[in-house]
Amino acid sequence: MSKRIKIKALLESTQTNIEVTVKGWVRTFRNNQFIALNDGSTNNNIQIVVDFQNTDEVLLKRITTGAALSITGTLVESLGKGQKFDIKATSIEVLGDSDPEKYPLQPKKHSLEFLREIAHLRFRTNTFGAIFRVRNSLSFAVHKFFQERGFIYLHTPVITQSDAEGAGEAFRVTNLDLNNLPRTEEGEIDFKQDFFGKSTNLTVSGQLEGELGAMALSDIYTFGPTFRAENSNTTRHLAEFWMIEPEMAFYDLTDNMDMAEALLKYVINHAIENNKEDLEFLTQRLEEEDKQKPQNERAEMSLLDKLQFCLDNDFQRLTYTEAIEILKESTPNKKKKFQYPVEGWGTDLQSEHERYLVEKHFKKPVILTDYPKEIKSFYMRQNDDGKTVAAMDILFPGIGEIIGGSQREERLDKLEQRMDEIGIPKDELWWYLDTRRFGACPHAGFGLGFERLVLFVTGMGNIRDVIPFPRFPKNAEF
Amino acid sequence: MSKRIKIKALLESTQTNIEVTVKGWVRTFRNNQFIALNDGSTNNNIQIVVDFQNTDEVLLKRITTGAALSITGTLVESLGKGQKFDIKATSIEVLGDSDPEKYPLQPKKHSLEFLREIAHLRFRTNTFGAIFRVRNSLSFAVHKFFQERGFIYLHTPVITQSDAEGAGEAFRVTNLDLNNLPRTEEGEIDFKQDFFGKSTNLTVSGQLEGELGAMALSDIYTFGPTFRAENSNTTRHLAEFWMIEPEMAFYDLTDNMDMAEALLKYVINHAIENNKEDLEFLTQRLEEEDKQKPQNERAEMSLLDKLQFCLDNDFQRLTYTEAIEILKESTPNKKKKFQYPVEGWGTDLQSEHERYLVEKHFKKPVILTDYPKEIKSFYMRQNDDGKTVAAMDILFPGIGEIIGGSQREERLDKLEQRMDEIGIPKDELWWYLDTRRFGACPHAGFGLGFERLVLFVTGMGNIRDVIPFPRFPKNAEF
Repeated sequence: MSKRIKIKALLESTQTNIEVTVKGWVRTFRNNQFIALNDGSTNNNIQIVVDFQNTDEVLLKRITTGAALSITGTLVESLGKGQKFDIKATSIEVLGDSDPEKYPLQPKKHSLEFLREIAHLRFRTNTFGAIFRVRNSLSFAVHKFFQERGFIYLHTPVITQSDAEGAGEAFRVTNLDLNNLPRTEEGEIDFKQDFFGKSTNLTVSGQLEGELGAMALSDIYTFGPTFRAENSNTTRHLAEFWMIEPEMAFYDLTDNMDMAEALLKYVINHAIENNKEDLEFLTQRLEEEDKQKPQNERAEMSLLDKLQFCLDNDFQRLTYTEAIEILKESTPNKKKKFQYPVEGWGTDLQSEHERYLVEKHFKKPVILTDYPKEIKSFYMRQNDDGKTVAAMDILFPGIGEIIGGSQREERLDKLEQRMDEIGIPKDELWWYLDTRRFGACPHAGFGLGFERLVLFVTGMGNIRDVIPFPRFPKNAEF
Repeated sequence: MSKRIKIKALLESTQTNIEVTVKGWVRTFRNNQFIALNDGSTNNNIQIVVDFQNTDEVLLKRITTGAALSITGTLVESLGKGQKFDIKATSIEVLGDSDPEKYPLQPKKHSLEFLREIAHLRFRTNTFGAIFRVRNSLSFAVHKFFQERGFIYLHTPVITQSDAEGAGEAFRVTNLDLNNLPRTEEGEIDFKQDFFGKSTNLTVSGQLEGELGAMALSDIYTFGPTFRAENSNTTRHLAEFWMIEPEMAFYDLTDNMDMAEALLKYVINHAIENNKEDLEFLTQRLEEEDKQKPQNERAEMSLLDKLQFCLDNDFQRLTYTEAIEILKESTPNKKKKFQYPVEGWGTDLQSEHERYLVEKHFKKPVILTDYPKEIKSFYMRQNDDGKTVAAMDILFPGIGEIIGGSQREERLDKLEQRMDEIGIPKDELWWYLDTRRFGACPHAGFGLGFERLVLFVTGMGNIRDVIPFPRFPKNAEF
């Protein structure tokens, strides 16, 4: 049954006048004569020429937008513009009808908001076909990059006992009966009776477990779902998202930055090489969107130029302290244009500050290092100045933070001291501390938010449009 | 800092008398002279020869099992047996000590049960190093297989609203305060106030969402974590496991079987080609284990021979009905050796029956098809006989079911009728039914339990030993 040829392969054919069978979904049917058929293998449709005078009228009426067809015919050079080949149909079979009165996807432009409500069908549009093919390429490129370098893909657990970052934003996982919660003698909920015998939640990061792997296998990476029960309805946050977290033994902060920059360039290049047509389509889509905007709000570079620019330029590396100086002296700060004025050393950077550095000051990706320890996690390696840690954040235009990482604190005493200061229970993390007791070594790693990467590469504006079925406050549909 | 060479690369060196730097963990230190160093890149250690007469005694004492070292020296041909090269150390730095009195991993054989309790350190043993390198290879092979065939990797959601299979074995996900559950006027728990505005749980399968992708992109696959809150303490069940679920438009049951068999052969072959030393080690491990057993319980084939046998032979395909006939007439059934006697058509097969078919009767992998509809899921395509569905299960020696799949019911009326019969709420699955309303087409897919595959390829006996941090009843440690 699968002896059909996919449209992507068909369009690369070097032969004509051969008989072929294609299967796919109708995008449009013009003049009772021309079917644009798409099977998802490429953004391009194949045009089917129907001999309507010799085709049953009942059949012709069933060729509607969205219908699934099987078509056999002869591959010929196209007489029309914009396509290389047509198929002159000799046999048309309707596999599945699509009532044009009810089918939600019409051959016209739908809003992204509307398409989000029919996420089960939006894969059938040009925009989302392109997005999910690019997402697929980027996923595979991530694996290829690490496999070529001898990293081990480690599946760290999704259900965990503790909220690693201590941020308190983890979802609870339970199979207790909420209508009949078991209680201890003291009246507390008795999690001993829960499935895992303890209170459990969904992981916010696989890093701590990743470090355990790196302390034996040298280089590992994770690529899995992570979760935040954060009530933020923004275009850059999801409750469920995919993260890539490599962890490397015997790496310092510079090695870590080199690896992160190499990874980003590799996967972007992979998409440019493997998804040319999808990226051209998305570039054009953005250009049309830009035409609706006033001149001064339009993008300075096209999507494809922006991606190429990332490959051709070294990322700008500077310390947090240097960045604060630049921001303090910046025109928007002096003119009080920042919502959060930059006054002194120690405060966390806001999105507006990151964007200023990347988009206005350096006009390229930026790696900020050596942040104040107060605004970073307990596991980051303390610098000798007593004030900063060996952290690094990579900031991308339009996205902000795309990667966050650090050299890890491998010195047991320093690590325990920091955990005590912040109030992280050491007994819960006995296994993490064990790696500092037995054969500790300098090591580093980072986390790459996969959807933010897809957002950047596709040029989309809302993170809900780059994951198949987005989860956010009040939404877990499909 | 990362200018070290990994031991795997070093052992493939074509040069000697060059200066090299290696970093890793001490496996053993003999006679104050020979360090076996491992860095996880291979099961093989590199032997470091220490000039102990000219080495500081305090330093020598710190070279203990588990300690992390950085060693620079000259690569020379080894005089000893069993290794090609040694490093004559010129500089030894202890990066992290390991107190031999406290380090749980001693250079002796530990039980798998003990190692499970120190899963954070078991990566440092030969057995688990080999297992997780093989697991890594199999993961990548899965991606390669599908990417080479134009499949799109689709990240289906982990948090879902409904328990797709209706099995009632899903974990609840919530961020309600369990000590202060909000109630509706009727006194029910008010899930409108939960994070997603509805009752949600962890996915038991990405298939239904996968089908949505296939109905636009033709061929998709998932590879992600799935969950079962099943209280089964067996060697073949986990509460959290990884599953691969491809879904193919325009495929029937035969195409589906062909694809599944090709996938299994491809990934097994990939491991044989890329993990020769790891698989040789695991083969030897099993042989030693077998020596402890009475002759008649020993494996007929070595691990590597068993893997090769899978590649060299077509899987045996037969219907459930044919299988029942074979089982009814089988010696163990007639001699009442089965715990569950096979009496007639319609009952589900037990593990003992599957093993008889695979291990005794056919002595090779088996694909059973066309099961009674009563023992299979609602979405499987109904055969014309009115009794069976177009299901297929692949059974492997020692594992049992490794793949379960089917052609899907694409006919809306048949699907709705079956859902009504079983009592699956149609309104909850409106989006799934939509794909049968608009451009439905024949399609098929299957699920491969990734840990069962790793179990088979590594020859391990307990599924808890082939995932980094296993989750099972009363355990979510690390």
